[in-house]
Amino acid sequence: MKNQYKIVIDTKGADKGPEMIIRGALLALDKYPELSVLLVGDSELISEECKKQGAPIERIEILEAPGTITNYDSPAAALFEKTDSSLVRALEALSAREDLVGLINAGSTGALIAGSMRYLSGKERVRPALAAVLPASNGGFTCLVDTGATIDCPASTLLHFARLGRDFMKNLYRIDNPRVGLLSNGAEPTKGNKVVKEAHVLLNEAEDINFVGNIEGNGALSGDCDVLVCDGFAGNQVLKVTEGIAKRIITDIVKYSKKTGDESLMKLVGYLMGIYDFNSLGGGIILGTSKPVIKAHGAANEQSIVSTAGILLNLAENKEIFDKTAFDIK
Amino acid sequence: MKNQYKIVIDTKGADKGPEMIIRGALLALDKYPELSVLLVGDSELISEECKKQGAPIERIEILEAPGTITNYDSPAAALFEKTDSSLVRALEALSAREDLVGLINAGSTGALIAGSMRYLSGKERVRPALAAVLPASNGGFTCLVDTGATIDCPASTLLHFARLGRDFMKNLYRIDNPRVGLLSNGAEPTKGNKVVKEAHVLLNEAEDINFVGNIEGNGALSGDCDVLVCDGFAGNQVLKVTEGIAKRIITDIVKYSKKTGDESLMKLVGYLMGIYDFNSLGGGIILGTSKPVIKAHGAANEQSIVSTAGILLNLAENKEIFDKTAFDIK
Repeated sequence: MKNQYKIVIDTKGADKGPEMIIRGALLALDKYPELSVLLVGDSELISEECKKQGAPIERIEILEAPGTITNYDSPAAALFEKTDSSLVRALEALSAREDLVGLINAGSTGALIAGSMRYLSGKERVRPALAAVLPASNGGFTCLVDTGATIDCPASTLLHFARLGRDFMKNLYRIDNPRVGLLSNGAEPTKGNKVVKEAHVLLNEAEDINFVGNIEGNGALSGDCDVLVCDGFAGNQVLKVTEGIAKRIITDIVKYSKKTGDESLMKLVGYLMGIYDFNSLGGGIILGTSKPVIKAHGAANEQSIVSTAGILLNLAENKEIFDKTAFDIK
Repeated sequence: MKNQYKIVIDTKGADKGPEMIIRGALLALDKYPELSVLLVGDSELISEECKKQGAPIERIEILEAPGTITNYDSPAAALFEKTDSSLVRALEALSAREDLVGLINAGSTGALIAGSMRYLSGKERVRPALAAVLPASNGGFTCLVDTGATIDCPASTLLHFARLGRDFMKNLYRIDNPRVGLLSNGAEPTKGNKVVKEAHVLLNEAEDINFVGNIEGNGALSGDCDVLVCDGFAGNQVLKVTEGIAKRIITDIVKYSKKTGDESLMKLVGYLMGIYDFNSLGGGIILGTSKPVIKAHGAANEQSIVSTAGILLNLAENKEIFDKTAFDIK
């Protein structure tokens, strides 16, 4: 018999409501026989939805949490004040119980990151990173790290991010010796802001990193590296500008289609949305924690929950990612 | 009779050679009767090309410069060592002569910025900004400042950039009270790195700035602001990620067209290239100098020279942009 893995799913916080998250969890149980779940939230609602869907009760545990942390709460304050919230109870359980291997949440990103740092970074507070895995133009994937968790940081943190991203791509995407690039404003080592220039030196000197040098914004998704390292401010720009421009060009095509009356273009729109729908890629992954935490998009659907559960299972089977590198630096 | 304006054109440094730049200059003379030019470079070659094209000799002055600064030169060193280069001679002339109103160059961006700072910022060395004017999705234009000239800077410099961008959009694009946005990783004033958060406060307090708050990467080209302020590192990411993704999606469409055999899609490609061909917008504009300097793209063609000459003429007629704000801060 295969190993059994239990993951925590916070049922609150998604735009489409807790029922959608619960249905997603049940679909994941269908797909992965080795999976079991701890569903956190309104226990009555969870029980009802499970019954309605004919769920496998023996693989489902329910944890009551009446409170909710929303995007309108201040992340740090909410963690202290809303101790009955689904997020705090989910993180407490994940932190305390050895049988739980990871967490999915579709609510406030800020609270999730602050909470992960509080409950899952042990005695030393490490800087967490929110990684995104994006489709590269060569058909592969690039792990962009950080995309917004750590905004101001020294060069040593970028080196830390490089290791987190490397281990992640190695273990999850089975890439032998992941190529690590550094986001900068020019290819030469002398290009970059102060922190990036220092990070270039550190990455070059680090013998455990397969450093391929600086990567410019127009090459971010070219597939020239498997891990693209940057601080959360720059990474957030790369992610959001990419999303913004992709969405805008797709809108341009729809307009052009209407203008020219050429409806066949809507097929092309479907094709492009298949490539640039970042929602389908499973949301952001928090690295730098002692156990894996995945931020599903607020607009997540059932299938996003299934795919993020799949990522957590994969990570659970490769748990050394988290054991080894989480506490390398302060 | 209209005012006469003479602009300096460095004929060297373009990918397509000096003849193209010279032909572009002559086309600009054709188009703008109030224009005259100082062409800097190989005087023999310039004379020959002018004769060949039947140029209006009375509106053309030629300045001999045997040397060339290339992209392979270190910008700062080249300015000191290559004193016979077309760029140094062009900048010296622009700085020394009152009759010259601006400069076009299609060579090394680094040398042009360093040179503009050296020759055109007076006694106080101000931080220059390389602005780009990009097409917004509402049909307007957004001035992104800075896009790579000033990589590390304090919040006060971002305020300075806001003023430079504001005056530029006001005078060149005739926008009454340009809306200034601040690039950040979230809409709230508390979002941003340390410098951005400080800049938010400064911009908010500045009574002469129509500050509309933080703008995220996915709204950079939405048209929600006329001037988008950021440091050169972040601005470079916005510019290059935009270029990279636009180019990639256009390539995707070409591939899709081949795959499906639907050749009508090439019309759509032409349409999108019309929107996203940043070359046609006249290159980067250096702000923060005592006289306007335009960096034409290395891949510029004759028409780019004509349109950049048009921008310089427009700026010359509104020269208070440069007189007023160039020396606001150190």
